[in-house]
Amino acid sequence: MVLCMMTGSYGDDVPIAAFATSPGWSALTLIRCSGKGAVDLASSVFSAPEKLTQAAGNTILHGWIVTANERIDEVLVSVFRAPKSYTGEDSLDISCHGGGAAGRGVMAALRSAGFRDALPGEFTFRAFMNGKLDLTRSESVMELVSARTDRGRRHAVNRLSGALENEINAIKKILVEVLSGAEIFLDYSEDEIGADPDETAGLLPGQDRAQGALARLQILAASWQRERLYQEGILAVIAGRPNAGKSSLFNLLLREERSIVTEVPGTTRDWIEAWVSMEGIPVRLADTAGLRESVDPVEKIGVERSRDLLDAAELVIYLLDGEAGITAEDLSVIAELKQKPAPHLVLWNKADIAPMPQQLAPAAFIRVSAKTGEGVADLTKAITAAVKARAGVDGAADSQTAAIGSERQKNLVEAAAAAVEEALLLAGREEPLDIIAPLLREAVNALGEITGEVSTADILEEMFSRFCVGK
Amino acid sequence: MVLCMMTGSYGDDVPIAAFATSPGWSALTLIRCSGKGAVDLASSVFSAPEKLTQAAGNTILHGWIVTANERIDEVLVSVFRAPKSYTGEDSLDISCHGGGAAGRGVMAALRSAGFRDALPGEFTFRAFMNGKLDLTRSESVMELVSARTDRGRRHAVNRLSGALENEINAIKKILVEVLSGAEIFLDYSEDEIGADPDETAGLLPGQDRAQGALARLQILAASWQRERLYQEGILAVIAGRPNAGKSSLFNLLLREERSIVTEVPGTTRDWIEAWVSMEGIPVRLADTAGLRESVDPVEKIGVERSRDLLDAAELVIYLLDGEAGITAEDLSVIAELKQKPAPHLVLWNKADIAPMPQQLAPAAFIRVSAKTGEGVADLTKAITAAVKARAGVDGAADSQTAAIGSERQKNLVEAAAAAVEEALLLAGREEPLDIIAPLLREAVNALGEITGEVSTADILEEMFSRFCVGK
Repeated sequence: MVLCMMTGSYGDDVPIAAFATSPGWSALTLIRCSGKGAVDLASSVFSAPEKLTQAAGNTILHGWIVTANERIDEVLVSVFRAPKSYTGEDSLDISCHGGGAAGRGVMAALRSAGFRDALPGEFTFRAFMNGKLDLTRSESVMELVSARTDRGRRHAVNRLSGALENEINAIKKILVEVLSGAEIFLDYSEDEIGADPDETAGLLPGQDRAQGALARLQILAASWQRERLYQEGILAVIAGRPNAGKSSLFNLLLREERSIVTEVPGTTRDWIEAWVSMEGIPVRLADTAGLRESVDPVEKIGVERSRDLLDAAELVIYLLDGEAGITAEDLSVIAELKQKPAPHLVLWNKADIAPMPQQLAPAAFIRVSAKTGEGVADLTKAITAAVKARAGVDGAADSQTAAIGSERQKNLVEAAAAAVEEALLLAGREEPLDIIAPLLREAVNALGEITGEVSTADILEEMFSRFCVGK
Repeated sequence: MVLCMMTGSYGDDVPIAAFATSPGWSALTLIRCSGKGAVDLASSVFSAPEKLTQAAGNTILHGWIVTANERIDEVLVSVFRAPKSYTGEDSLDISCHGGGAAGRGVMAALRSAGFRDALPGEFTFRAFMNGKLDLTRSESVMELVSARTDRGRRHAVNRLSGALENEINAIKKILVEVLSGAEIFLDYSEDEIGADPDETAGLLPGQDRAQGALARLQILAASWQRERLYQEGILAVIAGRPNAGKSSLFNLLLREERSIVTEVPGTTRDWIEAWVSMEGIPVRLADTAGLRESVDPVEKIGVERSRDLLDAAELVIYLLDGEAGITAEDLSVIAELKQKPAPHLVLWNKADIAPMPQQLAPAAFIRVSAKTGEGVADLTKAITAAVKARAGVDGAADSQTAAIGSERQKNLVEAAAAAVEEALLLAGREEPLDIIAPLLREAVNALGEITGEVSTADILEEMFSRFCVGK
């Protein structure tokens, strides 16, 4: 009996196992297994071991996970044979009863059979190593899992389908061709001993094609600001004095907009927040009403947390209590908000019972009634506009064209673009090719790193460890 | 395009679909589909429709869920053909990317293809209707999903394997035999017109066998108290004055005992609670430290909630602040606890810095230090003993013998036992068989209802609607 061994590093092909679904009160729990000999290993804890070892790929067996002493759970085992599996290795998906206890029992049996717990992202890492996915697609897998809105899903699916991979490879191909043209020239020059560097100057064959590649890289790099918005969303904080109606507004927006998921922080509940979708952009809406507004020294912690939240906000929705009017405190907070880089909206709440005085400039306020819902359409329009302006998103973000899906990719695209730009600058100044060629090589390498053609163990480990376990 | 129609009742065989795993940040999400024509219907949103319609049972296809306009998600589709499926109908398990957005997109595509959302327990209901599971096994499916500890899982698996079904059927068989013996006699008597009731008195053939059946029914009925404990667990509440160390003790017990799952109530966080396993018994440990102990009228709500929690407690763990000693308030609370039916333990906390005075009876207190962990072994022993005593569980609860798995089953077993007991009593008094036979018939019917041999639509609907969706 081999006990669970955590090697703590990727790169072997020993059989691994992990939960592929969230624990919780659900019908089923899925456990994923993969690695050399995984099917044989699993058969040692399966009620029909011979059937399992002989099972063809892409077939399903029904039976029990068993140990020497007892039946653990009734399961379905899906068998995948290398290379026709997600990882490219022999794999199994074990569908057990949901809820936790059954899955934990099956995992324990698998560990005692010799499987080790998979590291985060280890299945996808193996898929990459076995040539099933390039790095852009690997990253899109995790992006898809994390997608908060339907639009976010679409953008991730686009990358999973290979749109980014194809664009990167197309650009790289151009640069490789330009580079080989230059290198042929260099090789030729090197043959002539003592060749004058000036002889290779001002002659970058395919310079216009390199220019075209640069433009495409720049479009890609610019796409990240928009894509990141769809992935990460934006933090919008509702603030205002006590009784201004913050909770009512929060609840109203949750009702009106499609609420994605409500999250209540675990250990200390200082505020309530929920994700809402505004034209496909995930907005994390936080209601500071839960924060204690007190002068009690202990409770001041709550006020401090409120300040932290406001500092982190990418959009502040400040609520005035229309009934009470604008107080000195309101004016001082609004003045403060004007100093911050994040945009803010000022709302005149309770407009149903307290009309806004004519002395106030109508354009500076959005009149709402969190109670009756009056003005909520104007408000969501204003929020959406502010969110889009903040992220530089124009009306229709296209999910069909190639776009960057991660910070890592953006940095590499920018590095490639900078190298090509520098190369073109030098070529324009008629500098020698042996200074220009290494820059093009640098750009090609950066692009190769995006898809994973060029990669180091460190980079891969850093990248995949951010995945969830079971993926 | 057929839109989602919620019929709101079980009993048809139209194709249904539902999430079978919990939403959350996970690698995969499983969607289950079942019903007449389900495979053909699903093929209309699958990238390789012909392959899917022609797929054999127990095989897996790789492809995309697609609509007219776009690719929704890359999926694996497991195909099951009637009657070889969980429900006994044509079924599919669609494994999509986890996290929510992908699964929601796939569900939307399935709805537009003509699937309707499954009702809670509808898959298992169909399995029962198609003769795949009797009612005791159906119930054990949900019990397994809800199992909080490994011991709980074992008991549910025992029932899923048919231990209870077999025992019920064995007892029923005996009673049916006794009953037919009696009925033959009755039939014979009825042939003689004007037969004297006294002629059939005192003659219950197989009376001793009925006595044996009764004993087995009584053993079954008694098993429910123990089984319920493993299913539902027990609520243990930690109470004590401010600064007595309630949170420290709570955290200590979570660390020491295997914590099952930590739950923080959603809307109002009045207390913190977590499930811990004590010798396989799920204990819901609640820490009232989160409750505000204040004289402020608004905050008094917290204190009231604390009282409600104490009233609901099945075990109270009362903490004394050893440094402060026993105050008048402590004494009054302890006196109050003594009046309650639930057991309580009184702890002398901070024993590391404040030894218990010799004037106090050592047996009445458990000396602990929530800070150093001193005395925690004694404490868990005492908690476990109290929990077991409360539920009438002896040392080794056997998971191999037949035992009751639900309130419904217990009521029917008790009804059967009562009827048999009454029948035997009447037989002992030499009452006529035509009074005795209907009682035996009643017992047989009650047992048939346990396994679902005898059932009504109402009973079934009530039972399955308590299941989770997707099961």
